[in-house]
Amino acid sequence: MRTAATLLALLLALPAAGASPAAKPASRTACDLVVVAGAALPMDAAFAVRGETAVAIRGGKILAVGDVSAIDAAYLPKERIVRAGGVLLPGFVNTHTHAAMNLLRGISNDQPLMEWLTKFIFPAEAKNVSPAFVRAGTDLACLEMIRGGTTTFADMYYYESDVAASVDKAGLRAVLGETWIDFPAPGHANLEESKNVTRAFLEKWKGHPRVTAAIAPHAPYTCSRETLQAARALADEYGAPLLTHVSETQDEQKQILEKYGKSPTAWLDEIGFLGPRLSVAHGVWLTPEDLKLLAERKVSLSHNPESNMKLGSGIAPIAAARKAGVVVGLGTDGSAGSNNDLDMLDAMDFAGKLAKVAALDPTPLTAPELLRMATIDGAKALGLDRLVGSLEPGKRADLIVVELENSHSQPVFDLPSTVVYASRAGDVSLTVVDGKILWDGKRVRTLDEAKVLAAAKEWRGKVLKSLEESGKKK
Amino acid sequence: MRTAATLLALLLALPAAGASPAAKPASRTACDLVVVAGAALPMDAAFAVRGETAVAIRGGKILAVGDVSAIDAAYLPKERIVRAGGVLLPGFVNTHTHAAMNLLRGISNDQPLMEWLTKFIFPAEAKNVSPAFVRAGTDLACLEMIRGGTTTFADMYYYESDVAASVDKAGLRAVLGETWIDFPAPGHANLEESKNVTRAFLEKWKGHPRVTAAIAPHAPYTCSRETLQAARALADEYGAPLLTHVSETQDEQKQILEKYGKSPTAWLDEIGFLGPRLSVAHGVWLTPEDLKLLAERKVSLSHNPESNMKLGSGIAPIAAARKAGVVVGLGTDGSAGSNNDLDMLDAMDFAGKLAKVAALDPTPLTAPELLRMATIDGAKALGLDRLVGSLEPGKRADLIVVELENSHSQPVFDLPSTVVYASRAGDVSLTVVDGKILWDGKRVRTLDEAKVLAAAKEWRGKVLKSLEESGKKK
Repeated sequence: MRTAATLLALLLALPAAGASPAAKPASRTACDLVVVAGAALPMDAAFAVRGETAVAIRGGKILAVGDVSAIDAAYLPKERIVRAGGVLLPGFVNTHTHAAMNLLRGISNDQPLMEWLTKFIFPAEAKNVSPAFVRAGTDLACLEMIRGGTTTFADMYYYESDVAASVDKAGLRAVLGETWIDFPAPGHANLEESKNVTRAFLEKWKGHPRVTAAIAPHAPYTCSRETLQAARALADEYGAPLLTHVSETQDEQKQILEKYGKSPTAWLDEIGFLGPRLSVAHGVWLTPEDLKLLAERKVSLSHNPESNMKLGSGIAPIAAARKAGVVVGLGTDGSAGSNNDLDMLDAMDFAGKLAKVAALDPTPLTAPELLRMATIDGAKALGLDRLVGSLEPGKRADLIVVELENSHSQPVFDLPSTVVYASRAGDVSLTVVDGKILWDGKRVRTLDEAKVLAAAKEWRGKVLKSLEESGKKK
Repeated sequence: MRTAATLLALLLALPAAGASPAAKPASRTACDLVVVAGAALPMDAAFAVRGETAVAIRGGKILAVGDVSAIDAAYLPKERIVRAGGVLLPGFVNTHTHAAMNLLRGISNDQPLMEWLTKFIFPAEAKNVSPAFVRAGTDLACLEMIRGGTTTFADMYYYESDVAASVDKAGLRAVLGETWIDFPAPGHANLEESKNVTRAFLEKWKGHPRVTAAIAPHAPYTCSRETLQAARALADEYGAPLLTHVSETQDEQKQILEKYGKSPTAWLDEIGFLGPRLSVAHGVWLTPEDLKLLAERKVSLSHNPESNMKLGSGIAPIAAARKAGVVVGLGTDGSAGSNNDLDMLDAMDFAGKLAKVAALDPTPLTAPELLRMATIDGAKALGLDRLVGSLEPGKRADLIVVELENSHSQPVFDLPSTVVYASRAGDVSLTVVDGKILWDGKRVRTLDEAKVLAAAKEWRGKVLKSLEESGKKK
């Protein structure tokens, strides 16, 4: 019975954790940090499931990943961190969110998208969204992501240069898409202003080691051909990523069909919008032809199962998309009601279970596949896989540890499935980005947590007051 | 705009938390414990959403629920616990699990039910399940449930008298169903032995304040008419609850139709099995006629969304069941692969999102409805609603606090949706059952956590060895 043998191999590969004593020759290479954990899922191409593992880091880069004794023999670190009861992973990559909307967390729930947008989101945004709002909201989102093991995220919102300032301070990595939309929005009176704001944004953050400025025309149903083509042209000029929403709801699908006589994807292809460096979010109603087109045009897809479920949008054809050759990352979407948090462990759990129930078959999207989607495939989807997404020498040191020594994870028979289906964001005990420790299991080192929470509460008061006032006028 | 006004009312109802000073007249009534929290969802019939709230407890019973100043003026407690940043709730009621299977957590994933059962579960159980296994597994499950805010659970397994001993020690409340099945199982060579074992179990635990002995014939496809009727007769003799699995998979539905010419529910009704004190788990493939029959016979349903999704069983018609008048509780199912944990906050999150995506409509199963299912309706489903399920004077004091002062819950615009969609089991900072503090946010007081985890790991080794041996024989 091969499976039992596999299980036994796993048992042997996961010895009781503890730092190994090692020979200490004088010739050890100096490095900044060594992280040791009881197990590791480096997310390399072979999907290695490792027992005790150490990672040596210098200048923000991974020098080596290996057995503790070998790393200890070869490297002399300034700092050595041991997480004997945890599993090392590359940090999670959240391929779609609206970070600043954390300030509107759960402002409306259990109601139709249009109600939600017109009664809560649009009025709340019109009255409140400003650079200060965006900074406070992004601080809150970064705090949540750092504690929950997300090291890279893709954002779509307004005032992205302020989002970038917050991300820079927090120490995270991000692809930040300035949103263009064909009605007046915060900081975007019209297409001209969008172009100017975004050009300045692209210029300002050029060459930043962790922040990639991007352009995010909202969606085919809210952006004209002119807007979308202008966004593509500017993106091509700067080699910048493009982010958008596609085929989220059945209504959108119908609307575009009526207007242009084809699917949103086919129309985007016709106007020359599809192409490299583009990642589309949702794709719930993508047809097999759309999937083929996305694969051919090297467009990636961000799957947001919790948002698609909570808003009643539908079930995205993720197994089919992967089969068609589309790179699929995972996203949480924003926290204002389409999801209520930015938890990538939840995103994997939901993506897996949703794919299985949709197929009436427990085999699609295995735990290893879900882990890939949340790490290396997410990095690929955002064009960052040469930098991050796996623990391999030469990559930037973006890594996390998830603790397993607790009553909801033990015993561990199958490490990938334990992480995907039993671990929680609260189990993350270490978050490192670019070699810098952002969260050590006790304290977020780059943000003042109390201040960030206090600011969030203050904004809540303002938002409620603004809704109250706009209510009185009606 | 009424909704904004409602939001503002909520704002006012949730003042910055902190203990109010109170007059202390000499005439205060002595009590054992007062718990104060910054907010409360007592789950009473009106679904009150309260700001700062205190609960007074004596002899394991709730004396009063009210404003802090009023409770402080009226009661003199031996102990006073303050959770200024949390929300008080009745403890969660998990209406379906197999607690001891926590020792087989995630032993197999992402594969068809029959593979899973025949390659892993049955061999692992046949070789390992004993009273000692069941005690160790139930200890682990109780530890997880206590930390995660579950105060009552319904169990189906073998050696339930040993399960009861573990539950008694842990301090939880439970309905424990001794499983009957028509093939030799641990402690159940045949129907005669099942009857004898179960009668002894019912006698032994009669009158226990927290443990209710029950009978759990496995399912219509694994139990004959004789077995089911014997179980019903014994249940009626003792006034004991009955637990079973019904309509979990499409295969089961077909099998029963071929064998008996009707649906599992209709057949169970024909043989006189349906009736009071019966709770059926899953019900994925229940027809509208089945739902009507369950409502008429006062049979409750346990909805296990995560299990039904992960095993690819299907989507249970929960909104329709509730509409038909069936009492629906929430369950996690066991941790051996049908779910990987016993997390009731997850169960609510999945139940809500699954109902919405199934309907392509975000309105079914609101956050308040999901909270009801996880508390008072679960208690009703198990016949315990006169005792627990809400925070009301006269009920037993089973309560929890969920912390909200963190970066994944703030800001709080809508308390029910924050708890359902953003809170995690790790946010539970207090678990009280029958007035006794089981978890104080730092320590589980009734179990030695290190010992329980060590025993779980030891059993893991034994299980892997037994699978290895049974593999070699093949």
